[in-house]
Amino acid sequence: MPLKIIVIGAVALGPKAAVRLKRLAPDAEVTMIDRDAIISYGGCGIPYFISGDVSESTQLTTTSFHMVRDTQFFRKAKGVEVLTRTEALAIDRVQKKVRVRSLETGEEKDLPYDKLLLATGSIPNRLDIPGAGLDRVFNVSNLGEAVKIRELIANGEIERAVIVGAGSIGLEMAEAMADLWGIETTVIEIADQVLPGLIGSELSGMVTTHLNENETEILLSERVERLEGAERVERVVTNRRTIEADIVVMAMGVRPNVKLAQDAGLELTDFGGIKVNSRFMTSDPNIYAGGDCIESMSLITERPVYLPLGSLANRQGRIIGTNLSGAVEEFDGAVGSFIVKVFDLTVAGAGLNLSRARAEGFDAFSALVVQGNKAHFFQDMELLYLELVVDRRTGRVLGIQGLSPLGDALAARVDAVAALLKYKPLVRDVSNLEIAYSPPYSAAMDVVNNLGNVAENILAGRNEVIDLDNFANLFSSRDENRTIFLDVRGPANAKPFVEQFKDSWVNIPQEELENRMDEIPGDKDLIAICNNGTRSYEALLALKKAGKKGRNLQGGVAALKKWVCKTSNFVEIAKGEKLTRRNITKYFEDLILSLTYAAAALAKRRSWVRLKDEVLQGSP
Amino acid sequence: MPLKIIVIGAVALGPKAAVRLKRLAPDAEVTMIDRDAIISYGGCGIPYFISGDVSESTQLTTTSFHMVRDTQFFRKAKGVEVLTRTEALAIDRVQKKVRVRSLETGEEKDLPYDKLLLATGSIPNRLDIPGAGLDRVFNVSNLGEAVKIRELIANGEIERAVIVGAGSIGLEMAEAMADLWGIETTVIEIADQVLPGLIGSELSGMVTTHLNENETEILLSERVERLEGAERVERVVTNRRTIEADIVVMAMGVRPNVKLAQDAGLELTDFGGIKVNSRFMTSDPNIYAGGDCIESMSLITERPVYLPLGSLANRQGRIIGTNLSGAVEEFDGAVGSFIVKVFDLTVAGAGLNLSRARAEGFDAFSALVVQGNKAHFFQDMELLYLELVVDRRTGRVLGIQGLSPLGDALAARVDAVAALLKYKPLVRDVSNLEIAYSPPYSAAMDVVNNLGNVAENILAGRNEVIDLDNFANLFSSRDENRTIFLDVRGPANAKPFVEQFKDSWVNIPQEELENRMDEIPGDKDLIAICNNGTRSYEALLALKKAGKKGRNLQGGVAALKKWVCKTSNFVEIAKGEKLTRRNITKYFEDLILSLTYAAAALAKRRSWVRLKDEVLQGSP
Repeated sequence: MPLKIIVIGAVALGPKAAVRLKRLAPDAEVTMIDRDAIISYGGCGIPYFISGDVSESTQLTTTSFHMVRDTQFFRKAKGVEVLTRTEALAIDRVQKKVRVRSLETGEEKDLPYDKLLLATGSIPNRLDIPGAGLDRVFNVSNLGEAVKIRELIANGEIERAVIVGAGSIGLEMAEAMADLWGIETTVIEIADQVLPGLIGSELSGMVTTHLNENETEILLSERVERLEGAERVERVVTNRRTIEADIVVMAMGVRPNVKLAQDAGLELTDFGGIKVNSRFMTSDPNIYAGGDCIESMSLITERPVYLPLGSLANRQGRIIGTNLSGAVEEFDGAVGSFIVKVFDLTVAGAGLNLSRARAEGFDAFSALVVQGNKAHFFQDMELLYLELVVDRRTGRVLGIQGLSPLGDALAARVDAVAALLKYKPLVRDVSNLEIAYSPPYSAAMDVVNNLGNVAENILAGRNEVIDLDNFANLFSSRDENRTIFLDVRGPANAKPFVEQFKDSWVNIPQEELENRMDEIPGDKDLIAICNNGTRSYEALLALKKAGKKGRNLQGGVAALKKWVCKTSNFVEIAKGEKLTRRNITKYFEDLILSLTYAAAALAKRRSWVRLKDEVLQGSP
Repeated sequence: MPLKIIVIGAVALGPKAAVRLKRLAPDAEVTMIDRDAIISYGGCGIPYFISGDVSESTQLTTTSFHMVRDTQFFRKAKGVEVLTRTEALAIDRVQKKVRVRSLETGEEKDLPYDKLLLATGSIPNRLDIPGAGLDRVFNVSNLGEAVKIRELIANGEIERAVIVGAGSIGLEMAEAMADLWGIETTVIEIADQVLPGLIGSELSGMVTTHLNENETEILLSERVERLEGAERVERVVTNRRTIEADIVVMAMGVRPNVKLAQDAGLELTDFGGIKVNSRFMTSDPNIYAGGDCIESMSLITERPVYLPLGSLANRQGRIIGTNLSGAVEEFDGAVGSFIVKVFDLTVAGAGLNLSRARAEGFDAFSALVVQGNKAHFFQDMELLYLELVVDRRTGRVLGIQGLSPLGDALAARVDAVAALLKYKPLVRDVSNLEIAYSPPYSAAMDVVNNLGNVAENILAGRNEVIDLDNFANLFSSRDENRTIFLDVRGPANAKPFVEQFKDSWVNIPQEELENRMDEIPGDKDLIAICNNGTRSYEALLALKKAGKKGRNLQGGVAALKKWVCKTSNFVEIAKGEKLTRRNITKYFEDLILSLTYAAAALAKRRSWVRLKDEVLQGSP
């Protein structure tokens, strides 16, 4: 008797497992069922279909060789039967059969199995608020809704969009709406930063700046209370304001879809995923589960973590296919790599960010390094902003996050550190990471090596750093006259700051510092500043040698500028000091103005877009 | 008494160690000496200075904040004394002093040390042949020679260049000459491939094709016997021909510069590097050495390996600085990551290539995968060609090599696998590598994961593959009628091949194969072919199920075309099947013609450029 396998769910993990199984056990009878008519599609491509980067929805359902992955394809090319528009109603674990119903005919029947795979995926989180059922309130969780959204947009019916949630999907949707279609877009996020859970406060400030620069309004720490409208949604009411909207997209994450498993009495995790072992076997040895309906083991914390990622679903699917065939293959766990495009910026990371690391009980700190993607003497360099999260007690690296206009160059660094993470690397492993070197691609001491080096200096207590949040706080209270901002760059770079902030901003170039030590008041809090944090580190050591103490602004003016400067564009910022020669006054005026805004914004936890309007209207 | 440190050599490792030491031990007295007047420069930038990508030689000697790294800079900003134009003559290890001579004044003196660092670097290999001393025969090992070369070129004195050696530097120099300056350039290599030791035969064939496409002549398996000319070099005579040349650049690698160490009685390795322990301490505990004058420990073979890389020198320098300060820091070893730009192609790798793995005693095989850099439904995809080298006995991954027009996207995959290599990863660790996924940057099952998957299928005996060399051999003997080339793509793709090679080329699309099995002759050698090796793998499984046996062309037509197609340009090739719709006849005519050339070239071990000329002149 051939092995009978039923797979419930035919989007990502299900098909991958079914096909792998058939390759290993060609005689197995595999039946895959799905509620939907469209199966086996690239769900992560939905925002790019809406933006038009992917021109036809069918591109998401075809193979790389342009065959449509429909029931015919699975039958003929893969030997897998697929029942679409078919709902799984219940699992009889004793009789080993699944009760299914056709959504076309209403007909019910039992499908017997030897092994069953639950690839039931996730359910989008929705707000349970008044108006949530109005027309034109969408998720982006399936291709059908995406097609409807794009039709509305293409028909010119959408002028103002509200996205609820500033996670990866929310920001991808914001870009899709605002960039190509020119829709006036507002993103509302209940947390106090964009990409919460993924990146830390400093990088998220930079992303917010970039979104603002691209005319996308970001409202943080704000709660949506109700949606209003006749039939269609017309307004979004938050705890702070009312916003006009022709469409609302809920992008507040997803949760495991486990009803079928729960009804069948399978064990769940505390978080609510289906509990599986390292082979993806549930509490019933004849039933497997994987992808968005389970939790994975975190290779950082060694505790379960929910990572609903298409890439993980694919890799897990292959392993499950192997196990269904009778062979044994284990899954070690995941570090949670991610990458997301936000207009002209790429944000990526792996492992824990600083706040999550602390929440997990680590005594964590982070190092921030800003450096070019190529050897510094090479042309067309762009900056990479990288943050390394480290456990102070053990020196273990817990995560990396970063951003850059160069996505692939950023990925090269993040993916390399991600590869290390499962081996519990120490800071020295990052210092000595072998990023392939040649001037067009990297630096001899690459940004990621320097990230390890800076972390090592912080760990050793040699480099006492201050982050951008704390810097902005000190800066905004500079009138209290307790702090000296010690600018150790050349006079040309420092001049506009010295002129603007005479009492608190002092310029002594790093190479002159040792001989001019007596110019520095002894009773003040010293913050050393250079363009990227390197020379200011050397300045700290000189201060220390002279018996003084100070802190170093992490990432220097380069980080500061990216964080606070609304008006300069990305390319200009990325050029760093070079740009100053071309347009030095404007550049620093922008920075100073922005710094002022930022400090105020930080104090008030307000959006810069609105704050600027208020300032310009004279009511700050 | 402050610690006295002498550093001999002030290019890369020396300055890095000196500066790190001063940061950790500010009171140390550090003196760095160098024969040259120019110090602390980015030697890896030399080809880019010659090409003009780096416009001024001073860019190679300045910091990222535009300060010249001269003796003044080291004294004032770093607290390090530098004696330039100063030669170290001898080390007195008992008295702990170094005898030095000023190349300006001839004056000699002794410099006492507590600790000594040998950063003496490497010596370029030169041919000891008649004419080697002629004018305009250069190395590219120091900035002075580079400046002379560029002056000659800029003055229009160079029309024909010969580069001896097709390693990284040789190919970078070839591009510098041919691309920007339009110099007629020939590269002569004694090995039978370009980038010998770095990449395998299949990828090197692709690189050669790309060089030929960029009008750079590559002569393989050819030995330079003498240089001829009056004062200047005018001709290069090899064992096969005479080539006119206005300049000859020797790029045949380097060897450790150890004379000083040897004279002082320090132990050397068999290869001839200075022997050091994991802290870079030589056989004399007061003397350290690192960079190009030592061998590093290979993390793959656990034997010494010579890796003269600027990046390694920088990282080792920092560790040596730590050790010189009295702290303890060890260096684990290296996997030898590299990356090199060859016109519009990037080539990168880490660990062992196939032939080197076999030479090191591994029972090695390799998997080749060709896949796009993005989700396949995304626009503007480019192909990545990746080869994974695996030990058959243990399943251990020994190395990765690849090429692509997208350098950073290639680096993302290679650097991630490089990061794994020191942990002795198995194939499954590559299958499950967490390349950060989002459609603009990667595939849900990324090329590097598929590389692991293919290797696993080969290991398990499910996927029996044939490489391009062997394919070309079979193809060129197709008249013997022993082989069926079973093309399992769609009819439109297969048609031109079927028409051209009726007797040996059969088209049965993969999804029809099971039902058309009886069309396949049972007595022939079967080679399954699709566009990238995926569907042909499924075809193999179907053949197997039907009791037949076959082999799968690794990387499919995509790899074949990159390897053999001289006339199509890179972008067209990378588009793969899509292109066929636009210009199908021309595309396949090119391929077929090139396949014929390639088979002939392979048989004769000849250059294609010359072979094509011969064919066109009717004398093949």
